[in-house]
Amino acid sequence: MILNLAFMFAIFRIAIAGDPNILPDFMARNNTIDANYFTFTEMRQLVGGEYPTTFKALKVTMNEFPTLNGQSVSYVILEFPAGSINPLHIHPRASELMFLVSGSLQVGFVDTSNNLYQQSLQIGDIFVFPKGLVHFQYNNDTKEPALAISAFGSANAGTQLIPTSVFNTSIFEGILDVSFRATRATIRKIEEGLKQ
Amino acid sequence: MILNLAFMFAIFRIAIAGDPNILPDFMARNNTIDANYFTFTEMRQLVGGEYPTTFKALKVTMNEFPTLNGQSVSYVILEFPAGSINPLHIHPRASELMFLVSGSLQVGFVDTSNNLYQQSLQIGDIFVFPKGLVHFQYNNDTKEPALAISAFGSANAGTQLIPTSVFNTSIFEGILDVSFRATRATIRKIEEGLKQ
Amino acid sequence: MILNLAFMFAIFRIAIAGDPNILPDFMARNNTIDANYFTFTEMRQLVGGEYPTTFKALKVTMNEFPTLNGQSVSYVILEFPAGSINPLHIHPRASELMFLVSGSLQVGFVDTSNNLYQQSLQIGDIFVFPKGLVHFQYNNDTKEPALAISAFGSANAGTQLIPTSVFNTSIFEGILDVSFRATRATIRKIEEGLKQ
Amino acid sequence: MILNLAFMFAIFRIAIAGDPNILPDFMARNNTIDANYFTFTEMRQLVGGEYPTTFKALKVTMNEFPTLNGQSVSYVILEFPAGSINPLHIHPRASELMFLVSGSLQVGFVDTSNNLYQQSLQIGDIFVFPKGLVHFQYNNDTKEPALAISAFGSANAGTQLIPTSVFNTSIFEGILDVSFRATRATIRKIEEGLKQ
Amino acid sequence: MILNLAFMFAIFRIAIAGDPNILPDFMARNNTIDANYFTFTEMRQLVGGEYPTTFKALKVTMNEFPTLNGQSVSYVILEFPAGSINPLHIHPRASELMFLVSGSLQVGFVDTSNNLYQQSLQIGDIFVFPKGLVHFQYNNDTKEPALAISAFGSANAGTQLIPTSVFNTSIFEGILDVSFRATRATIRKIEEGLKQ
Amino acid sequence: MILNLAFMFAIFRIAIAGDPNILPDFMARNNTIDANYFTFTEMRQLVGGEYPTTFKALKVTMNEFPTLNGQSVSYVILEFPAGSINPLHIHPRASELMFLVSGSLQVGFVDTSNNLYQQSLQIGDIFVFPKGLVHFQYNNDTKEPALAISAFGSANAGTQLIPTSVFNTSIFEGILDVSFRATRATIRKIEEGLKQ
Repeated sequence: MILNLAFMFAIFRIAIAGDPNILPDFMARNNTIDANYFTFTEMRQLVGGEYPTTFKALKVTMNEFPTLNGQSVSYVILEFPAGSINPLHIHPRASELMFLVSGSLQVGFVDTSNNLYQQSLQIGDIFVFPKGLVHFQYNNDTKEPALAISAFGSANAGTQLIPTSVFNTSIFEGILDVSFRATRATIRKIEEGLKQ
Repeated sequence: MILNLAFMFAIFRIAIAGDPNILPDFMARNNTIDANYFTFTEMRQLVGGEYPTTFKALKVTMNEFPTLNGQSVSYVILEFPAGSINPLHIHPRASELMFLVSGSLQVGFVDTSNNLYQQSLQIGDIFVFPKGLVHFQYNNDTKEPALAISAFGSANAGTQLIPTSVFNTSIFEGILDVSFRATRATIRKIEEGLKQ
Repeated sequence: MILNLAFMFAIFRIAIAGDPNILPDFMARNNTIDANYFTFTEMRQLVGGEYPTTFKALKVTMNEFPTLNGQSVSYVILEFPAGSINPLHIHPRASELMFLVSGSLQVGFVDTSNNLYQQSLQIGDIFVFPKGLVHFQYNNDTKEPALAISAFGSANAGTQLIPTSVFNTSIFEGILDVSFRATRATIRKIEEGLKQ
Repeated sequence: MILNLAFMFAIFRIAIAGDPNILPDFMARNNTIDANYFTFTEMRQLVGGEYPTTFKALKVTMNEFPTLNGQSVSYVILEFPAGSINPLHIHPRASELMFLVSGSLQVGFVDTSNNLYQQSLQIGDIFVFPKGLVHFQYNNDTKEPALAISAFGSANAGTQLIPTSVFNTSIFEGILDVSFRATRATIRKIEEGLKQ
Repeated sequence: MILNLAFMFAIFRIAIAGDPNILPDFMARNNTIDANYFTFTEMRQLVGGEYPTTFKALKVTMNEFPTLNGQSVSYVILEFPAGSINPLHIHPRASELMFLVSGSLQVGFVDTSNNLYQQSLQIGDIFVFPKGLVHFQYNNDTKEPALAISAFGSANAGTQLIPTSVFNTSIFEGILDVSFRATRATIRKIEEGLKQ
Repeated sequence: MILNLAFMFAIFRIAIAGDPNILPDFMARNNTIDANYFTFTEMRQLVGGEYPTTFKALKVTMNEFPTLNGQSVSYVILEFPAGSINPLHIHPRASELMFLVSGSLQVGFVDTSNNLYQQSLQIGDIFVFPKGLVHFQYNNDTKEPALAISAFGSANAGTQLIPTSVFNTSIFEGILDVSFRATRATIRKIEEGLKQ
């Protein structure tokens, strides 16, 4: 018994994540729902569609597909034309499981011990980005586009883009300079670049 | 205040679902992990691969990709040659969000009020199967195969196939006959068909 | 430390279940509630009542006793006249802990690895049916009725009866035949038997 | 949208309760388990057994029946000979749903606003004691015993008896006197009574 | 594999606690919120304020600061003039982490195995009171006041004072006498002391 | 009923947060623990201690105080000498509730809709930073130090510093330039500043 307790102490380190489920089987808008209520057709646009000219993220979360409320799962389709990036960002409410459907990608994340994990993915590869950590995906091929689909164990994982949330010109004076140990001029260069 | 409480009473119906997250950022096998630890490459086989001749489910859960432990998300790739089915089954631990990547599918599920929701999906459609309910996916096209990817908000949703779990020849005598109000001969016909 | 991490990896496999609790002590319908709000009296009918002639499940969930909303627990009283069955079914939202109060029962369930666990219970026995798995309870005694009480760690565990949810005559043509590898005639026999 | 948000604000008050579920269907002691692993037979003693002469609580939690670990449910059988009490106590980890199987009981609890809810129950009644609150059950009948079964939405709800945990003679001097605004002599009388 | 399963069995003992988070970043009262919505200024009163003459608990929970709804954290500031006590009480919904900012305190709690853990704290000490257990804090210094701040992992931990909830004169006759094995006269002495 | 369901749909948006609780009252290292196990004394150093010359965060999480494992709460003491900053950072696993004990602070965070919420706090103020969002705290007073205590509803909220995690010189070439739409030279200036 003492041994077991000692083991418990050493190995037990978890926290709860994920959305709540619903005590009815699903959250119904009203009593006249039918199978269409469980079907999301807006991604048909992808079929035979052309690649966008800049990076594009097509979301299928509870905001676009309200039936997902309470189902604890969502998607995003990521289209990367040649040379485009999904800039550094975090998802505060879920891990991301990315499947690379076509092309190649450079991906990576930084953990809370400041370790950098980065990888060059080829078509068919799957990569997991743990919850709430800064990460990126970059198609550095100069010719070929890349396409990926990502799943999240939440109906609303949320996204915070680091460049635009950090280099916000309304932020109290001094915060960015002191945070980044940079001159006002350097910070302003980045701020101006991001506005374009 | 009384009104608010009354509303609370009426609308409050949720349960908790999803896996636990982990208090470290991820569950590391040891201290020498690198980016490969977060990469799953076994689905490269799909690229340029041929269709199987019978229905096939390629899983990417914590059993195949242990890094998913604690990340609350998993995939399954579903290959349906013409005329094949993913027979009636349930996932006890997560809802399923299916994206139809090619071909067409007939899908459906039954809720706990015994309502049947079924749909004919075309390429690009997304369908959600709520947690723990009997459902099916069928490619009734006689020529074209279908391909789908499904996401789950759990690293191990689990699968219970209804035909083989129910028509189990070791089950106590009488259970199936009385459950299905059928003769022994009828039950045996089904049992024998499933063994082939 | 490395050792501990290795253990963590191996042993860590849980998911969250159960309902939410409520931040007030209970969900009050209004501000004039008294002790009756916490009392459910409809089971007094059982006292001195006669056995039904067919299997009967008397539920005490948040649907019959709304005070249970947020309390994460519910009951069902199961009455089995001689020879009756609680047919194959699943509870999508909780495990079932059954206490056999009188008579005898044959019970069992099938897990997601398709293992069948079945038992002949005698009076006083307790059996646990894990969450979301197909299970059954059968009183195969030809004379004595049986009575059981089951507890669930959810205020609304939900029930899906396999026979009637599966053998649904409205289901797309071909689904059942192909799922069960049976002829249309065999499937129809079962469908007709269940309608009676 | 603004309205919806306002509603959210007003009505949203929940916390998470209940145990974790397990990513395998159940926590197996080893790979050779069979149906006995899911069966608890120690309550057969109740059948035809005599009433104890003092109040007795027979527990069926994960301590007595380890298979319950991860199943989020447990029982306790409560035997009340005439005039006996289950003294004031709390369960820190689950609500209690009590079914009065025979006899009569006086029961009650106090909520965090210091409201007392108490009831005289008759055979067949069900009463819910919300999680973590002081409550009691008393058979004040001078002749008839009472028998109740209680379910909990946790495999280990825990019990803290108020009299013995509070009137602990080792507690720092002054704590009890000042807490209860009583003389040392009065406190000592209670402490001595509880020791007998 | 068998070994791992065996370990799982031995060490696995957790339950879920804590509040739900919110799928939006925060629960907004309306769409015109600004930074004041996230700021609570009522504790400015503490600055330069005089000590109260009796024990006082200043709460910062979702009741006083509704923005905390869904943020799973709250505070209480505890002011102990010389000789004052925070009487025996429980928090049904969270553990308490107390930081002693000035003075000294005698603190303690009793666990569900009836073990008493008590400590004399000096300034700068931190003590944890596990969830749902009877505990106390006492400033037995005759001259110096004490000040502590406590954090809870819930926006509404709740408080139940043992003396006033237990020695309630409306409680059914006999409950207290039999629970505490005391005479009516002894119980009445305590009840009368608490009324003053 | 239809109305209620419609409300459910609109207002129901939560996810689960917080750590797991433990089925025993606490995770004991062994069977010989006493009250010291629940006491953390390392913060006594703060009493009468001098201010550091740079910003300093003294943590009281399960890493420093292992007893917190399973108790879902932790602290950090934040010391800000004049002009110092707690640079832009995120906590992936909990919201932060900060109490400003002395001095003044400029604080703020950015939500997932890219709204900036910032405030000038005075002594006695409390501010909440929602989970997983970029935030900062800055003492821009040129003379007075500031002291704050922050509570988290997790035993291990985790911290990711934006400057050092983002401007990592090992990151794949191109990622930062393209993410921030900046020249290599500008990025390098920041990288070099942060190394000093």
